[in-house]
Amino acid sequence: MVSVTHTDGGLAQRLAQDWARRIEHGLLLPGARLPSVREGAKLQGVSPSTLVAAYDRLQAQGLVEARHKRGFFVREQRGPVARPATAPAATVTAPYDSLTLMRSLMNSEATPSPAHGTLPMEWLDAALIRRALREATGPGHDALLLRYGDPQGDVELREALAHRLADVGVHASPAQVLTTVGATHALDLIAHTLAEPGDAVLVDDPGWPIEYARLAQAGLRLLPVPRTAQGPDLAVLARLAQQHRPRLYVTVSVLHNPTGQSLSLAQAHEVLRATEAAGPGRCWVVEDDTYAGFAPPHLPRLSALDGLRRTLYVTGYAKVLGAGLRVGCVAGPSEAIERLCARKMVQQLASSPITERALALLLQRGGLRRHTERLNERLEGARTRCRRLAEQAGCAFSGPPAGLFGWLDTGVDSERLAQALALDGFRTAPECLFHPDRRGGTHMRVNFVGAQAPAFWRALSARRQELA
Amino acid sequence: MVSVTHTDGGLAQRLAQDWARRIEHGLLLPGARLPSVREGAKLQGVSPSTLVAAYDRLQAQGLVEARHKRGFFVREQRGPVARPATAPAATVTAPYDSLTLMRSLMNSEATPSPAHGTLPMEWLDAALIRRALREATGPGHDALLLRYGDPQGDVELREALAHRLADVGVHASPAQVLTTVGATHALDLIAHTLAEPGDAVLVDDPGWPIEYARLAQAGLRLLPVPRTAQGPDLAVLARLAQQHRPRLYVTVSVLHNPTGQSLSLAQAHEVLRATEAAGPGRCWVVEDDTYAGFAPPHLPRLSALDGLRRTLYVTGYAKVLGAGLRVGCVAGPSEAIERLCARKMVQQLASSPITERALALLLQRGGLRRHTERLNERLEGARTRCRRLAEQAGCAFSGPPAGLFGWLDTGVDSERLAQALALDGFRTAPECLFHPDRRGGTHMRVNFVGAQAPAFWRALSARRQELA
Repeated sequence: MVSVTHTDGGLAQRLAQDWARRIEHGLLLPGARLPSVREGAKLQGVSPSTLVAAYDRLQAQGLVEARHKRGFFVREQRGPVARPATAPAATVTAPYDSLTLMRSLMNSEATPSPAHGTLPMEWLDAALIRRALREATGPGHDALLLRYGDPQGDVELREALAHRLADVGVHASPAQVLTTVGATHALDLIAHTLAEPGDAVLVDDPGWPIEYARLAQAGLRLLPVPRTAQGPDLAVLARLAQQHRPRLYVTVSVLHNPTGQSLSLAQAHEVLRATEAAGPGRCWVVEDDTYAGFAPPHLPRLSALDGLRRTLYVTGYAKVLGAGLRVGCVAGPSEAIERLCARKMVQQLASSPITERALALLLQRGGLRRHTERLNERLEGARTRCRRLAEQAGCAFSGPPAGLFGWLDTGVDSERLAQALALDGFRTAPECLFHPDRRGGTHMRVNFVGAQAPAFWRALSARRQELA
Repeated sequence: MVSVTHTDGGLAQRLAQDWARRIEHGLLLPGARLPSVREGAKLQGVSPSTLVAAYDRLQAQGLVEARHKRGFFVREQRGPVARPATAPAATVTAPYDSLTLMRSLMNSEATPSPAHGTLPMEWLDAALIRRALREATGPGHDALLLRYGDPQGDVELREALAHRLADVGVHASPAQVLTTVGATHALDLIAHTLAEPGDAVLVDDPGWPIEYARLAQAGLRLLPVPRTAQGPDLAVLARLAQQHRPRLYVTVSVLHNPTGQSLSLAQAHEVLRATEAAGPGRCWVVEDDTYAGFAPPHLPRLSALDGLRRTLYVTGYAKVLGAGLRVGCVAGPSEAIERLCARKMVQQLASSPITERALALLLQRGGLRRHTERLNERLEGARTRCRRLAEQAGCAFSGPPAGLFGWLDTGVDSERLAQALALDGFRTAPECLFHPDRRGGTHMRVNFVGAQAPAFWRALSARRQELA
């Protein structure tokens, strides 16, 4: 521990307590960098030596750790999570703290924040799900409670999903649909079944860090494809496909996370063509349509264009229904679905027919549809309001706001901005979180619903000016 | 297709129809061998050429396939399930048809059969589960329906499981328990997290073929440890551990499937010692306690003896509660549980908090305990009756009947006996099903509840005499 002579010990202690509270409240996620000594001292209005003393106290408490020449970082609170022994090193290492980040994001407090990945509970409809569960498990449905479900998924659910997929132009028979424990599980099955360790996989950059972690853990080499609010860099995509012959391209074509961008029909066509450079039939395009519920009608899907020949369509309902049911699915060519089903069956026999049948009922009846329509009306209002608040704060969203997230250009280093906003009690999601190499940038992902408070935008405006 | 001249075409057709019906009704599982031409002709009372003509018809219909010099086998009905591309060859190849076997067993008809792996629905209590689900998801529990659960598992469930584990002498804190999608999922996470492709793994032989398939698919080399109704061959266990330095020993210590054997305290002690020959801290003992609900009190567990240092305790409730909830768990040292949880989280974020909380309520309240006690009283009666019926049929169970299954010594080749019994409409589980190398034997696994019909035992007695 560095000596604390020449500093105000009482002040350092109070500062350390303030930081500890921010860390405990999740304002700074595990892995987040604390402000540099110079900048932190300026932000807090104390001397650099007092700030060093405060950081030392946090380090002694095990809340932060110093990294050589890089500064102080928030430590994981549960001891290091070991990387599975079976994961070979990937070309691009996934962010070291994805697992703790994930745990932290999933266990985050109910209060909406600009960093959130979901809707707040008040926007969801527990009664709708409760009714579906009761109907699914009522008298006369004993088999559902007592017996294994179909390993491929409840047949009523697969039929309902096939209908729903047709609404977005993806035509699959129920035999071409496999149910999973949320969309996440579908993506994991694909990474472990349709690729081999050492294979290359194309990913969107920026993109979803948990997906990077999953692919790296499966021993795959990540090939980042730059993506802006205007779409993916098709030239880079084609070049990487030709050079590395990847097995998978895992991508979000509608309401891409974090940019909110959706492919145009022409872009979708070019994406499919570019992946063909990997060789005939070599590269699976894995379309993660997690945000389908928030999408305007008639946006083109890669799977629709391709007719599910070399595409796999993945979706789930956690965003519009909430995360309690844990049911998602993947649709694709029968041969691939058979392989994925075989893996799922060895892994867990079958998923729960109880939650699957409840989702089937929600899809069959109008309740889910009406709930989703109401959500989207409210979300439209939240987006309009955020756009105005952002303008007043001197920032602009990259691309027209759509879906749940906006990709806000703050004009300053958004990681430093996130550090400063944590001092004001706001948790934000800076650009570095979404790059496989964690490089910084000026963008920030903003949850429209979690960013409704004018106080947040006032703080953002003030902190921007300090950092400019 | 072989010519059918010199045979009775009409008779061959009727025979083929009979066989087709047996296959469709699951009396012969995918991968099962049909009787040899000579024996089949004798069993059916027709000429060999008529039987060949019937088999040819079945082959033309895609129901069976001929294998060079081995005979005719029942084909999988859904097209071949591809082995994942990532699975290297194991030392001992798992039975080629494990996946189709699994699908077939899980989708088997509700009528109890001697081959069944579960209790019939009439023995289970749907109302008990329905009440727990309603209470778990009632008003005031919206968060359970709407938000991600704890990736490690619902904390109320982990507390209830820790209490239940203590009842069998396994002392784990809730932080040492990870919930999974049934016990199967726990075993799969372990195979993929605590071992690397190419590692050796000890397995019970005979044992559960799905476990062989899972381990082989994870790229592990199977080392079979002979097991009889007297217990595992400890000398072979120690020799294999020393020679191959396995990473895992996946074993059932209480009510072993299929022999029904349970380790004595001295055997349990020796098993732990023998695995130490793999090297200090090298080999995890994975104790699959799937049948705990049917076990007499106070049987020793390896995990209890070891104090969960190099043991992992896996259990689930599908056998006593039915398979609808899909909740199991693994308990072990914190470091291992952290690694398994990290893998689970990347794989599927969290399992459903809805079914987990329902199981928590069932464990907390007395309902599950009383239901289990009633089951065991009925099961005791079924065992007594089966023992008497077996004696009358001229057979005996190896070891005293316990739990759900008996390991019946039929005195004849049990695969040929199973073929003959299929003609009588009885599905049975011959010894070859449970060996990694599918070698034959005289034993048959008998589900006590599914073997209550005197007609089954009369048929068994008659067919034995034919084959003797």
